[in-house]
Amino acid sequence: MNYEEIMKLALERGFYFQSCEIYPDAPAGFWEYGPTGVSFKNKFVELWRREMIRRDGMLELDGSQIMSKSVFEASGHLSSFADPITKCKKCNSVYRADKLISEAANVIVPESAPLEDFDRAIEEHSIVCPKDKGQLEKVKKFNMMFRVGIGPLDEPAYLRPETCQSLFVDFPRVFKVMRGKLPVGFAQYGKSFRNEISPRQSLIRMREFYQAEIEVFCNPSKLNELERFKEIEQTRINVMLGDDEQPKWMTCKEAVESGAIPNKLVAYYLGLLVEFYEKTGIDVKRHRFRKLGAKEKAFYASVAFDFEVETSLGWLELVACNYRSDYDLTSHAKLSKANFEVMDGEEKVLPHVFELSMGVDRSLYTILDHSLRDDKPNERVVLSVKPYLAPVQVGVLPLMKKDGLYEKADEIFATLKRRYDAFFDVSGAIGRRYRRLDEVGAPFAITIDYQTLQDGTVTLRERDEMKQERIKISDIESRISKLLAYP
Amino acid sequence: MNYEEIMKLALERGFYFQSCEIYPDAPAGFWEYGPTGVSFKNKFVELWRREMIRRDGMLELDGSQIMSKSVFEASGHLSSFADPITKCKKCNSVYRADKLISEAANVIVPESAPLEDFDRAIEEHSIVCPKDKGQLEKVKKFNMMFRVGIGPLDEPAYLRPETCQSLFVDFPRVFKVMRGKLPVGFAQYGKSFRNEISPRQSLIRMREFYQAEIEVFCNPSKLNELERFKEIEQTRINVMLGDDEQPKWMTCKEAVESGAIPNKLVAYYLGLLVEFYEKTGIDVKRHRFRKLGAKEKAFYASVAFDFEVETSLGWLELVACNYRSDYDLTSHAKLSKANFEVMDGEEKVLPHVFELSMGVDRSLYTILDHSLRDDKPNERVVLSVKPYLAPVQVGVLPLMKKDGLYEKADEIFATLKRRYDAFFDVSGAIGRRYRRLDEVGAPFAITIDYQTLQDGTVTLRERDEMKQERIKISDIESRISKLLAYP
Repeated sequence: MNYEEIMKLALERGFYFQSCEIYPDAPAGFWEYGPTGVSFKNKFVELWRREMIRRDGMLELDGSQIMSKSVFEASGHLSSFADPITKCKKCNSVYRADKLISEAANVIVPESAPLEDFDRAIEEHSIVCPKDKGQLEKVKKFNMMFRVGIGPLDEPAYLRPETCQSLFVDFPRVFKVMRGKLPVGFAQYGKSFRNEISPRQSLIRMREFYQAEIEVFCNPSKLNELERFKEIEQTRINVMLGDDEQPKWMTCKEAVESGAIPNKLVAYYLGLLVEFYEKTGIDVKRHRFRKLGAKEKAFYASVAFDFEVETSLGWLELVACNYRSDYDLTSHAKLSKANFEVMDGEEKVLPHVFELSMGVDRSLYTILDHSLRDDKPNERVVLSVKPYLAPVQVGVLPLMKKDGLYEKADEIFATLKRRYDAFFDVSGAIGRRYRRLDEVGAPFAITIDYQTLQDGTVTLRERDEMKQERIKISDIESRISKLLAYP
Repeated sequence: MNYEEIMKLALERGFYFQSCEIYPDAPAGFWEYGPTGVSFKNKFVELWRREMIRRDGMLELDGSQIMSKSVFEASGHLSSFADPITKCKKCNSVYRADKLISEAANVIVPESAPLEDFDRAIEEHSIVCPKDKGQLEKVKKFNMMFRVGIGPLDEPAYLRPETCQSLFVDFPRVFKVMRGKLPVGFAQYGKSFRNEISPRQSLIRMREFYQAEIEVFCNPSKLNELERFKEIEQTRINVMLGDDEQPKWMTCKEAVESGAIPNKLVAYYLGLLVEFYEKTGIDVKRHRFRKLGAKEKAFYASVAFDFEVETSLGWLELVACNYRSDYDLTSHAKLSKANFEVMDGEEKVLPHVFELSMGVDRSLYTILDHSLRDDKPNERVVLSVKPYLAPVQVGVLPLMKKDGLYEKADEIFATLKRRYDAFFDVSGAIGRRYRRLDEVGAPFAITIDYQTLQDGTVTLRERDEMKQERIKISDIESRISKLLAYP
């Protein structure tokens, strides 16, 4: 199903919707998760913890979102995290200069070009405001970080534009007190903030968004010595080595041997990532690791792959995988004078960093995109998510309100509600109630009917095939627990 | 144990530490959770979801932290969320005027007094800067919200100073699409931001902090018609009706009958709260609901109780319980023109709001305060948290590195690590490893020794009593699962 249909589901079933929507000054690029969305997101994050963090023995942090100016001086964001923009002198509309030039004159001025290049292109091609043909102001840099002023003296600090900076800055303490051993992943799930000029497409490009970032600290001389590589060596990944090349399926082992992936450490984490996404229910047959060319990759990355998945919006980047070498630790060590070197056995080493920077909101969108289907023969829309990711895990439905069915259902509901995301629904015909549960992906429903009062059994109805069977009330909890289990 | 000892544990065992600590410009009032702290906090939040949200059928949202200016116009924060401050003309030190006056001259000028009153008091009592006796500037209001500028035009928006505003603003949509029925709790766990003039005491007063807020929307004419009141009517709470009065223990039923608590709805949620905190392991014998006088309570609250707990820092407010009546919905309805009225049966009603505003960081601190003990006879420090809240749930310890014990332990660890917060520890004498686990509250440890290789049994060591027993490897998972279960 397409973007509009997913948006309709999101709005009408409590997945997500625009922030401050009742006010006309609601800024664009801010979204809220409703009750269904919160439950869905929590389960996604728990799966990430299970299959990435705990599986690999990573250390998860939760740092401040407001960070000191020095952090972004060292990281390069204060000087480099900026877009070239221009403004219409008549209507004040603001445009990204590179995009406007490319759209108006089909000329490419790279994002990072000197400002004069943009001005020259605008003049040469007589580019004006697309809205009212007004003249454009000189191009300037617009930094995408949000500044905040601390205390009455308004000292400058910034909302982090990526979660990873705490992982770098906190490395010396955390590695020490947690008695770390290289290679070790540091991870963080949380909000990041970017003052985008044109936020768009709901969860796809927001100004405030969730990241789940992993920074693997490693000894650069031991990138091919990784015992646990064997866990994923047969895992198949789809590697695209250049924008003009066809992606190729290969095992992680083949990827390293053929040189497609530079070393075992990188290949191991790419394999882990694919195994994780497979468990989210995303169709991993539609993924690719696209290697970025010199122009496209971030300035700090020596090798970079984007993990992309095909959706109804085209290929979406879900995870940026960057080998950042010692860029970050060197910069922070230099400015802070803190010591980032650690012992690896007998060797003193300044760790290198391999990063997996995941967009959580986009990942959730992609799961919806791959899971929502229009089941026309049965006149229903079904969200076929994995049971362990389902926002509602079980519906509890009394067939009728009367004759003690409501009370019996409520009694069963009470035994389930603390542990499971259970939903009690009594209003409307039973078929309509099943369809509502299907739309929020509830994998099971329990119906309490007249037979329940006689023999203590209920109907267990399954979402995808709509199979029904009768089970004993005393078996409900163990059955559900089994059905919701991780693979 | 006292604040300093808890801080030592926090720093040395990865619970929490100051943000950006490697930089001299790290702003005060920002803290990070380390790996142990993240795990602990996640379990606390899960317990909150279990015992408050799911138990009561509340709707949880996750909204934007940056919100539009209108929201805070309507909420009153733009005009009223401000402290009176004054600055030394010589050294630029900034003080809260009311605090400075009270400390220097023992005179009370209420926080909300007109600015002239502060200036007059400063003049009358010849109050100067405590640091260098410099003259003080005229008192002005300092708004504690952090402003952020959106987009290249720098349109004003604010970091939310409380999570509850999304719950109000989103009420019309969420109540409708989730087919809400009064009374219904809306809840949110997330960050809030306050530009405090004097942040202090680590997790106690921060500029960026976690709240878990609940807003119960209810029909004001039905506050004593609450079927589920019976679930808590025998729960005992400790109510303190005035600052000069002794707190009194009573059941929730007695509290309503005696008029100590104004109605069943309020009493029900206070009871729920005490039951929740009891399960966190906080000693609820040391709690009180302190009723706030007219001067102390927030301007929107018609009745207000602070849930306070006695700690080594004195009485700490963990939850503010405010009956906000229709203050919020009326204000937002007026400014936004959105309709906040809903149907309650046949009656059209503008809901009233009862709020439970929980400080998460302070709650975590209080659990540590009540759980950490110096077990001198055994030369150890033990964090006796409830097993289901333990940051590390099980330690896996090979007695020696050699003779296949490491490999056997690693094999057992692999079966546990995805599901549990398991910690594999091989370094140091076994007694030292037990003590390290005790400090992070791991309720159990499994030791693999020579006997394991012979008969497939391991030692299960319990934290509090240090009891040891031998169990079969095949029984480990079911035993742990049972030992970690919620009550």
